[in-house]
Amino acid sequence: MTEINRALLRKDAPIGVFDSGVGGLTVVREIMRQIPNEKIIYFGDTARVPYGSKSQDTVTRFSGQIVRFLRTFQVKTIVVACNTASAYALDALEKDTDIPMIGVVKPGANVAADVTRNGRIGVIATEATIGSRMYPKYIEELNKNVTVYCKACPLFVPLIEEGLWEDPVTDEISRRYLTELIDIDIDTLILGCTHYPLIRSTLRRIMGDGVTLVNPAYETAIELREMLAGLELLNDEPPALGSNRYQFYVSDKAEKFVRFANSIIKYGILSAKSINIEEY
Amino acid sequence: MTEINRALLRKDAPIGVFDSGVGGLTVVREIMRQIPNEKIIYFGDTARVPYGSKSQDTVTRFSGQIVRFLRTFQVKTIVVACNTASAYALDALEKDTDIPMIGVVKPGANVAADVTRNGRIGVIATEATIGSRMYPKYIEELNKNVTVYCKACPLFVPLIEEGLWEDPVTDEISRRYLTELIDIDIDTLILGCTHYPLIRSTLRRIMGDGVTLVNPAYETAIELREMLAGLELLNDEPPALGSNRYQFYVSDKAEKFVRFANSIIKYGILSAKSINIEEY
Repeated sequence: MTEINRALLRKDAPIGVFDSGVGGLTVVREIMRQIPNEKIIYFGDTARVPYGSKSQDTVTRFSGQIVRFLRTFQVKTIVVACNTASAYALDALEKDTDIPMIGVVKPGANVAADVTRNGRIGVIATEATIGSRMYPKYIEELNKNVTVYCKACPLFVPLIEEGLWEDPVTDEISRRYLTELIDIDIDTLILGCTHYPLIRSTLRRIMGDGVTLVNPAYETAIELREMLAGLELLNDEPPALGSNRYQFYVSDKAEKFVRFANSIIKYGILSAKSINIEEY
Repeated sequence: MTEINRALLRKDAPIGVFDSGVGGLTVVREIMRQIPNEKIIYFGDTARVPYGSKSQDTVTRFSGQIVRFLRTFQVKTIVVACNTASAYALDALEKDTDIPMIGVVKPGANVAADVTRNGRIGVIATEATIGSRMYPKYIEELNKNVTVYCKACPLFVPLIEEGLWEDPVTDEISRRYLTELIDIDIDTLILGCTHYPLIRSTLRRIMGDGVTLVNPAYETAIELREMLAGLELLNDEPPALGSNRYQFYVSDKAEKFVRFANSIIKYGILSAKSINIEEY
């Protein structure tokens, strides 16, 4: 990793956050709640979404372009608010970057390794995140007595984007995906895709109360706050009124993004700006 | 449209075919059956799939890159084997191109306008294809006495790519999408996405035998043959053995493409080559 040049970073600079599309807004929501003084620049790669079915090379190339875009705003840190990009691209991105970065995989892995009692942890995520084996790798490094069971759930993102958050079809698909994890008797389940907290109540009902659901979005916001505090980079006071506190950029379909964003964040997102990410 | 420069085109040149991913292979399958003497260069934009939820600007930019890529093979014609790209981008592409091009929307529209008896035609397709209103536009130009009813079916592609071609969940989602078209008493249904022929038997069962299902892939191969014949560009004899008759290119995940391709085309696709389409 390139050394972080702390002297170049300002406390009142914004935090950059990116995702393949709208899922990363569940991370933004947690950052807004837990460190409300911060400014955020969000980028959703809606022209090339989804990442979860694509290769490491492609996801890494796309993520590199986004990091270059976010850095044009002099961000003080970048949050990779996408499990697939965190799993596939974070290591490579950190090598080239002199500002601190944080992904969603490690924070989720840390908590899961900590809370499991019977040593059986399940991870549900996209095909790419599961294929990367990053969750088992991190968790097993932290706790040798744990076994991690992984299940790719490719239909969850389309079902969630279609709005079927509470629906018999989502129930049926969830049951098919989760049965083997229930049979294995996991006691902890990582929601390893930033979309999945949106069907948390369905997952809760199917898994039962005995299983702890870990939401990496929540844990990432906590680790982000701690990291910024450690670097003395937390913003001391709220941004001035009218200072464009939260800005949203996308690579396609800004209006559709705004509609979906407002169903996730109750903040009243008024607009998002569309840019050509391939130019970065 | 730029004038076609017939003198530059050779009968034994390949046909270029492209799609956002694997769906266009249903068109390739029909071309292989109906004009077996032709060589084909196929490109599937698997790094940026799907197109059906994206904007006209983005789909047009992506399609332009692909046309530039296919032209490096001196193709004699290009088939836009994707309904969304045909609806959104074909007019713009033709303006810049001096070789003949054909999309899947007009051939499907032609046949539907011809076969309907009660003047009620349904179209099912992606959000983008439906939003473009190209099917109603073409059909109503051909036949003023027809009404076209459109229904976007965003979950069909993910369900088909997950392999649920015959499944109670696909039945349930199909019933939800199709109920209003059944209630309106359509007698003709256009499968306006190149993936949909793969769930033809489900759609047939739900719509009943009284409704004609129009597969634009089939109609496109017929129109392509007629167009090439009219231009005296049909290849007179089969390519020599070992001449790499069918070549497949993708922008990501060549191996996964090959697996899926072999479930559609019973030709035995051995390999696909991955290229960076953003460089074109």
